[in-house]
Amino acid sequence: MEPRADDEGYKDNPVNFHHRHFMGEGMEITVPEVHMVVAPPPRTTFQKLKCRLKETFFPDDPLRQFKGQPCGRKFLLATQYIFPILQWGSHYKLGHFKSDIVSGLTIASLAIPQGISYAKLANLPPIVGLYSSFVPPLVYAVLGSSRDLAVGPVSIASLIMGSMLRQEVSPTKEPVLFLQLAFTSTFFAGLFQASLGFLRLGFIIDFLSKATLIGFMAGAAIIVSLQQLKSLLGIVHFTAQMGLVPVLTSVFHRTREWSWQTILMGCCFLGLLLSARHVSMRKPRLFWISAGAPLVSVILSTLFVCAFKAQGHGISVIGKLQEGLNPPSWSMLHFHGSYLGLVIKTGLITGIISLTEGIAVGRTFAALKNYQIDGNKEMMAIGLMNMVGSSTSCYVTTGSFSRSAVNHNAGAKTAVSNIVMSVTVMVTLLFLMPLFQYTPNVVLGAIIVTAVIGLIDIPAAHAIWKIDKFDFVVMLCAFLGVILISVQEGLAIAVGISIFKILLQITRPKTVMLGNVPGTDMYRNSQQYKDAVMVPGFLILSIESPINFANTTYLKERISRWMEDYEADDASKHSGLEFLMLELSAVSAIDTSGVSFLVDVRIALEKKNVQLVLVNPLGEVMEKLQKAEECHNLLRQDRLYLSVGEAVASLSSSIKPRHPMSVV
Amino acid sequence: MEPRADDEGYKDNPVNFHHRHFMGEGMEITVPEVHMVVAPPPRTTFQKLKCRLKETFFPDDPLRQFKGQPCGRKFLLATQYIFPILQWGSHYKLGHFKSDIVSGLTIASLAIPQGISYAKLANLPPIVGLYSSFVPPLVYAVLGSSRDLAVGPVSIASLIMGSMLRQEVSPTKEPVLFLQLAFTSTFFAGLFQASLGFLRLGFIIDFLSKATLIGFMAGAAIIVSLQQLKSLLGIVHFTAQMGLVPVLTSVFHRTREWSWQTILMGCCFLGLLLSARHVSMRKPRLFWISAGAPLVSVILSTLFVCAFKAQGHGISVIGKLQEGLNPPSWSMLHFHGSYLGLVIKTGLITGIISLTEGIAVGRTFAALKNYQIDGNKEMMAIGLMNMVGSSTSCYVTTGSFSRSAVNHNAGAKTAVSNIVMSVTVMVTLLFLMPLFQYTPNVVLGAIIVTAVIGLIDIPAAHAIWKIDKFDFVVMLCAFLGVILISVQEGLAIAVGISIFKILLQITRPKTVMLGNVPGTDMYRNSQQYKDAVMVPGFLILSIESPINFANTTYLKERISRWMEDYEADDASKHSGLEFLMLELSAVSAIDTSGVSFLVDVRIALEKKNVQLVLVNPLGEVMEKLQKAEECHNLLRQDRLYLSVGEAVASLSSSIKPRHPMSVV
Repeated sequence: MEPRADDEGYKDNPVNFHHRHFMGEGMEITVPEVHMVVAPPPRTTFQKLKCRLKETFFPDDPLRQFKGQPCGRKFLLATQYIFPILQWGSHYKLGHFKSDIVSGLTIASLAIPQGISYAKLANLPPIVGLYSSFVPPLVYAVLGSSRDLAVGPVSIASLIMGSMLRQEVSPTKEPVLFLQLAFTSTFFAGLFQASLGFLRLGFIIDFLSKATLIGFMAGAAIIVSLQQLKSLLGIVHFTAQMGLVPVLTSVFHRTREWSWQTILMGCCFLGLLLSARHVSMRKPRLFWISAGAPLVSVILSTLFVCAFKAQGHGISVIGKLQEGLNPPSWSMLHFHGSYLGLVIKTGLITGIISLTEGIAVGRTFAALKNYQIDGNKEMMAIGLMNMVGSSTSCYVTTGSFSRSAVNHNAGAKTAVSNIVMSVTVMVTLLFLMPLFQYTPNVVLGAIIVTAVIGLIDIPAAHAIWKIDKFDFVVMLCAFLGVILISVQEGLAIAVGISIFKILLQITRPKTVMLGNVPGTDMYRNSQQYKDAVMVPGFLILSIESPINFANTTYLKERISRWMEDYEADDASKHSGLEFLMLELSAVSAIDTSGVSFLVDVRIALEKKNVQLVLVNPLGEVMEKLQKAEECHNLLRQDRLYLSVGEAVASLSSSIKPRHPMSVV
Repeated sequence: MEPRADDEGYKDNPVNFHHRHFMGEGMEITVPEVHMVVAPPPRTTFQKLKCRLKETFFPDDPLRQFKGQPCGRKFLLATQYIFPILQWGSHYKLGHFKSDIVSGLTIASLAIPQGISYAKLANLPPIVGLYSSFVPPLVYAVLGSSRDLAVGPVSIASLIMGSMLRQEVSPTKEPVLFLQLAFTSTFFAGLFQASLGFLRLGFIIDFLSKATLIGFMAGAAIIVSLQQLKSLLGIVHFTAQMGLVPVLTSVFHRTREWSWQTILMGCCFLGLLLSARHVSMRKPRLFWISAGAPLVSVILSTLFVCAFKAQGHGISVIGKLQEGLNPPSWSMLHFHGSYLGLVIKTGLITGIISLTEGIAVGRTFAALKNYQIDGNKEMMAIGLMNMVGSSTSCYVTTGSFSRSAVNHNAGAKTAVSNIVMSVTVMVTLLFLMPLFQYTPNVVLGAIIVTAVIGLIDIPAAHAIWKIDKFDFVVMLCAFLGVILISVQEGLAIAVGISIFKILLQITRPKTVMLGNVPGTDMYRNSQQYKDAVMVPGFLILSIESPINFANTTYLKERISRWMEDYEADDASKHSGLEFLMLELSAVSAIDTSGVSFLVDVRIALEKKNVQLVLVNPLGEVMEKLQKAEECHNLLRQDRLYLSVGEAVASLSSSIKPRHPMSVV
């Protein structure tokens, strides 16, 4: 593999000459072996449309298993497809049940305090958080296909719903209206999620890139934590705004309201919870320490308050909670009136955010345990779960990352762990609610802070910085947008920038000059392969993107610059440019503007006595060039080759000798 | 080139084995020749950013000519760069002047009636159309770099400005305010155009694809023609709406207002103009017939009205026009008040539409005469022209397609033809205005219809249908959107769909299975090359798009489907899958999600005992993979190859023999 970038490279022709007798129009001449470029087999527009639609909406081919099955079996498969519980339920074993009971109880111990806390984050009555941990897990157990997802309210969706609704309705002044709007938003979130799945538009959530999500989640974690300063410092009059600046301003303007008892208690429990989290992170085997810590904190703090009557000494408590299961809330859904726009918008944004979390969690654990998740089916399950939830006093729920991880670590085998959790929550709702009356709010704040702190993923941010600076900028925009402007706008900005980057890549595609890798007939980027040798008389350019309306102007300018550079280059001056070769292997598609572009380039080159040669047009491109062929002359046999090597071999014989060293 | 898709293909190994002694870690073994994939030479983030910014904003490298010049020369070049007139003016010859006088007079004869007509189309006083044909051409002659552009008001921009402003202000009830808003919109249009050029953002107009423009122009031509029914039928009370449906409804509701005299006159002159157009189209040498016809029509019809006092018999005439040159209108620009949003929006849309036309015209004729146009510089020239125009009683102007074609056909050599036209218009403004007093409006309508009918390009639409069905849909959306909804919204819909198509291509990239083209070591799409042979034990997939957040989920699903298909395929069942090869030649870029995707695929494959092999990652991709290498294991020497041929040759020796026919 010695580099041979010397002038010698020009002398020995870099191409393997396979001589062969070629029968062409009655005469027999010896030419280098050349292979034809062929178009793909013709298909009708309908066939192409069908194929395109299939790839767009059914890339995973979900109905494959139905093919060629008898009718009865098809029905069974369809029922199992809609209700996955029938599939895994039929071979459910006692061993599974033991694991599921353990993991179900573990996540219940986490879900109860988190449910109460997240409901408060959404400005809803704490009991709604428990309602939301009862019905939705049951629905998901029937419809969902993930074995590890632990369903319930999550921090970010709670935050967004709370803050969006609070912009127009005060949760303290009009609590009933606020609750109605929350349920209606939940309904729309579910409707939107189920529709995305049903219409197979699940790929829309892919536009939230990893970088966007990391920035967004870190920003949201900070916003959520800032909101907890209210409980942690015991402030009574807290700002209704969410941003970093107004919250900090408000906190430091109200130092007189700070309560030392609350701060002391908060610090103790925050320390306890964070240490538990730290231990579990260091030794994953001890996951139950961090899983149990919130419940332990709640119990300890409640006992403490009861024992010392601390609620009279500046420590605020939850207060009386009503007992009983979820009341129906169908009558509380409002599909008209002046707040319809607000609830639809809130539903859309919380829906998409919670969906993203739920699907990501499901996929992560499916990959770990090596089973498949059908994203669109999951969306329908989550969507239906929220629609049912909205009429049973639940607000928006999804698969939570932290609880699912605990569920997985605790050894959950199936969705039965969700049922166990749900039953535990039911028991709590029926009998244990009075116990929470003296639970101090400060502990709930500490539980939230501990839960969201895990959303700040510094190592991932560092990896992004190392690999892709642009992705880092996207991440930063999401982060700063969320903490400085607002949660929705930060997200929108980051998505906008990500899409802009894609468009920029198309608008400014890379064109690279290829040279011959010595000793082979391969042609590669001469910037990347420093020992690649130019072939005199040839300018070989590779275009690395689809050619379409957005880049034809750029490509024209760029190609003319390449040609000027070539002519300005001393080394090649001696043998003038004879062939401009466009290597189209990386051009996956072309549109009408692209076809015109190629025709224009050919005409412009002819004026300069340079021939345009096309190399390896792919299926779709070849097809379109063929269709455009009647009027233009792009596909002349001697201007179209299957590989650069063959093209150079075949054409270099036609180059006039101008330089003593050039190949004839 | 005989197809050899028989089973024999498996037997003789398709790869050239160049055996070579390879020195590796002290031991000497004989392996097939393998060439290393190398990363491009390292560059700092700053260098990369600089390069990226250059390609985005300065792809044409406009400052290249300044390089290495002495200071004085640099100053001269800079002055010539800003004022191209200094460049071509210095070697202007008498011969040029003769041609320019002829062409200048020809386009003036077209510009005067068109100017009056288009001003009426924009609901402005007819005189403004002439003002706009006087000052802007002079400004363009100094700043512009096209030799063929004939500057003045154009139909579509006039239509859009008129219709957008009329939505909020009535041109008949508040004519002064309407005129003020028109001038202010022109100022913003110019400011926007000049900023686009100055900020090198000219590529934004590339997003109006050819298909969009064809549909849009055809729709606009129909809308413009419909508006002319007012003059052509002599209707007095005409609807203020623009759409197809309301205009036709209004026309047929007011049959009582139709004036047979007007209709008769309109038909005669429309027939005259269309025949003249037809003659010139058949014989381009006779271009002057269609160029002169509008002026002849105006003169004839005016004489007719004067002779028969026809204005008293139901034929409406222009009426008294004031004499004199453009009055200054700086004081009429309003940069505050309640209409600011409207004028900015109007300026933006008319600015971008007129810019698109002007740049397209300039590029078309530059390509015909083989000279270069700097798009961004042209934008600055057109923008400044409109800013100057807005303070000298002109409304929005640009290079007109029809008049530029006449200019070109009449033999224009330089922008002096614009100066000649401008002087002719000046003479008209100073001395000939009273002559237009009796010009009937119906002739102006006929002139407009004749001018815009050329915008309906059926052959181009047919070519688009043949080449690219999706582009045809985009075209249709633009067309229907314009005639049924509104000009702006039709355009927005078409642009939206075009961008959606690009995103869809990224979201659902093509993955194709490669096979060996018999007799070569090339691997190509096995769908396209029916005789390409699969190599047993290998699944070779080519990914034809950047790998990024928008498509990693899809790619994962698609790859697992390819693998299932491979395993389900009887022919290859005998030799299980050993290697999944991803050919990355068409992957021009990758982001952090893409890197994670490759890692995930490798891990998933390892669980199935399949090795992931990467082939020919391009510069940027290789760079990012190298950066991610610390944590992952993607670039193992024996899992990374420069070409599929070498990879197959090198790896096929390691496949365990399972099938008697497979290669060992």
